[in-house]
Amino acid sequence: MNKIITISRQYGSGGREIGAKLAQKLGIPFYDNEIITRAAKDSGFSEAVFENAEKKASNSLLYSIAMGMNAYGNQDIGFTHLSLDDQIYIAQSNVIRKVAQEGPCVIVGRCADYVLRDYKNVVNVFIWADLEFRKNRAIQLYQLKENKAEEEILKIDKSRANYYNYHASEKWGKAENYHLSIKSDCIGIDNSVDCILQFLEYCERGISSGK
Amino acid sequence: MNKIITISRQYGSGGREIGAKLAQKLGIPFYDNEIITRAAKDSGFSEAVFENAEKKASNSLLYSIAMGMNAYGNQDIGFTHLSLDDQIYIAQSNVIRKVAQEGPCVIVGRCADYVLRDYKNVVNVFIWADLEFRKNRAIQLYQLKENKAEEEILKIDKSRANYYNYHASEKWGKAENYHLSIKSDCIGIDNSVDCILQFLEYCERGISSGK
Repeated sequence: MNKIITISRQYGSGGREIGAKLAQKLGIPFYDNEIITRAAKDSGFSEAVFENAEKKASNSLLYSIAMGMNAYGNQDIGFTHLSLDDQIYIAQSNVIRKVAQEGPCVIVGRCADYVLRDYKNVVNVFIWADLEFRKNRAIQLYQLKENKAEEEILKIDKSRANYYNYHASEKWGKAENYHLSIKSDCIGIDNSVDCILQFLEYCERGISSGK
Repeated sequence: MNKIITISRQYGSGGREIGAKLAQKLGIPFYDNEIITRAAKDSGFSEAVFENAEKKASNSLLYSIAMGMNAYGNQDIGFTHLSLDDQIYIAQSNVIRKVAQEGPCVIVGRCADYVLRDYKNVVNVFIWADLEFRKNRAIQLYQLKENKAEEEILKIDKSRANYYNYHASEKWGKAENYHLSIKSDCIGIDNSVDCILQFLEYCERGISSGK
């Protein structure tokens, strides 16, 4: 299997666990938010990359707005510097591209589907689930308080959607952005892993066997 | 298997063919746009239904706007009558609910996922594909002219999205509306059918086997 699998997921849907188990079954590396962020911080190449990205980004209206500029593009209020959020995004994207070049792997979050949009061997998966299922998981696994769980879940989902919509200029959770999308509470974590495995197997076999 | 499967699909993605083959493999009835529209026309119960729906709908701002009313809700310009499009939608929705009550089946299009949103045993599937794949299918299967195919595909998709967004007050193609979403050009028609079959099998087995 020569594929890079990216997983986008609603908070509490089990997307991270599905990704980890999938990587284990395939015997390939697994990267989540935490690992990518750490690697981005440790990377020596980030400063040079920031400079290039800055030049490119300074021409964009979107970036100007994000930098908090006024309508006249006044350079005094931060034209030449990217926000910390954008700097982190660029460093993370470089890590994602680097690990993708190294070979097959599973990457969870961080707009990896968008970062790798020009790669031919990428399969993008979206995992979502009922709020009730996600609440139960969040309470059990992430020690969220029962009376706060729903609010917290919706807040995190909103922040994931905003992050994706801003950086990828695309809609988070739009079926068309993913090769496969699964409602995990219907079939559970392990069956979701098997569903993805079967899809990957079909991809490998090629369309000829599936007409 | 005690499931009703609804299929929403981009034009040319093979969703209809996938639905037909799925129904055949499961040995259950198959309903597409054409069959539902014909049944709605033939149904004797539509007139009475229209009257009830009319009363309900006349309170809604959305319907008022759809009926071409002015801002003051002037009844002279059609307050008491639903548009033909809305009448057809209601008759079709009744057919969908009727066939769903009869037992397991596959229903393609006509906002069936939304019409059956309160049914517990429904699995909603979305099928989409690359434009190139859809163009080739549309040219081969629906005799679209090569230089007009892309324009026609995008027009039909837009009309499907508008139809769904209007009647279902939801976004067409949002991953969260479907239990399973598949990019059919990656794996082909027959493998997409098998993917859905496996998903259904997992649903039947229940979450206990998949944690």
